[in-house]
Amino acid sequence: MKRSPPRIELYYWPTIQGRGEFVRLLLEEAGADYVDVARTRGGMAAMMRFLAGERPGALPFAAPFVRVGTTVVSQSANILAFLAPRLGHVPADEALRAEANQIQLTIADLVDEAHDTHHPIAGSLYYEDQRREAKRRARNFVKERVPRYLGWLEDVLARNTVSKGQWLVGRALTYVDLSAFQVVEGLRYAFPNAMARMERKVPGLIALRDRVGGRPRIATYLASKRRLPFNQEGIFRRYPELDAPPPRRSRGRRQVRR
Amino acid sequence: MKRSPPRIELYYWPTIQGRGEFVRLLLEEAGADYVDVARTRGGMAAMMRFLAGERPGALPFAAPFVRVGTTVVSQSANILAFLAPRLGHVPADEALRAEANQIQLTIADLVDEAHDTHHPIAGSLYYEDQRREAKRRARNFVKERVPRYLGWLEDVLARNTVSKGQWLVGRALTYVDLSAFQVVEGLRYAFPNAMARMERKVPGLIALRDRVGGRPRIATYLASKRRLPFNQEGIFRRYPELDAPPPRRSRGRRQVRR
Repeated sequence: MKRSPPRIELYYWPTIQGRGEFVRLLLEEAGADYVDVARTRGGMAAMMRFLAGERPGALPFAAPFVRVGTTVVSQSANILAFLAPRLGHVPADEALRAEANQIQLTIADLVDEAHDTHHPIAGSLYYEDQRREAKRRARNFVKERVPRYLGWLEDVLARNTVSKGQWLVGRALTYVDLSAFQVVEGLRYAFPNAMARMERKVPGLIALRDRVGGRPRIATYLASKRRLPFNQEGIFRRYPELDAPPPRRSRGRRQVRR
Repeated sequence: MKRSPPRIELYYWPTIQGRGEFVRLLLEEAGADYVDVARTRGGMAAMMRFLAGERPGALPFAAPFVRVGTTVVSQSANILAFLAPRLGHVPADEALRAEANQIQLTIADLVDEAHDTHHPIAGSLYYEDQRREAKRRARNFVKERVPRYLGWLEDVLARNTVSKGQWLVGRALTYVDLSAFQVVEGLRYAFPNAMARMERKVPGLIALRDRVGGRPRIATYLASKRRLPFNQEGIFRRYPELDAPPPRRSRGRRQVRR
């Protein structure tokens, strides 16, 4: 009898999507046997024991982390690089795996910068105590950084001719496509005005977002209670004062629509 | 006749240590056959062609990146995870490789935060235009973040009983030990007062720093012109107003010294 692989334990804060969501999306798309430990009874205490160094295995600096058998793995990009080969969501080729990882790490940088739009001074201070700085940082993020990151993802897609620009790496969906979906969703939530303008410039990425969102398992997950809603505790937060101003109808656009 | 492995091409800004230094340290410790392309004649133009998407292979979002044969790899932690197995500076065991990567990614987070102490609003603005915010962010970094990161590295070392606390992962030196050395050096340069106080609390990490600094190839490298000095263009910068105040001799400490 074939021994089934060990159940994957995911440890992450139970009330936010945050960095854990990148892992949840992979587990859901793969139909993996997993448990979101901190959302079960006693799970928060179990997670804190790992973070306090009271459990064996590699010491996580922070959540998310996973345990698979006796192996503990932290840092979201590292978790994905560890799980994806097991779940068949990254090609075996070494160069393609390195490319997937570099895309994931660049998405992680974007996520860090998105976080710092509302916490530019310190994660340990309230938003209200760094509101002025947040406004300055967010203005730059929306104007310079988001276009640069999303434009780069658009370029990566266009260059991936083996998938005809359908997926970021190789011929089929990989975990980084799921992460690209999540980043578009997060930016839409946090910066709806800015994204409304930006999306026209990255049609390939938006089509990728739709392709991922339409996957049966992802669609089922998004409609389930397992998908936590975006909220003001996560990484992507909606503070209208940090977004671009609402779009105004320009003569140019009205003409195009006639 | 055995074919020799292709020469490693490193692409990084030629006047700073920055994120490229983590790669340089591995290449130097390994005695690798490599070229620091942007520091050669015409090298900057060659680097810019990759960043402009004019060369084949995975598209880097930013430097550093390496080319090995036809494979292009970017993101410093990803470069190290790609090169270290080739250079024999990480164990073959999968769990240990994941642990090395998670430590490297956590060091990379610390490096990002060190950068943001002098650029809390935007990398595209001058320091002088975000000085007040920098002071606030640096105060938090020095007081809360550095102790947390270095304390975590100290704990990781102490837990690695197979090396008797000598190395971060496994039984021998790996690339993450080199990176830990670099972080201590960078923090000493940027925050000398804060580090003078902090180092007593992380004796294992400081001993690791000395162990790495004493490696013959690293010592030769550090004394060579290949090692660029720290400067005000890199990630670790010395702005005295961002450091902790200079230490004063407290009665307590004088008593201990008597």
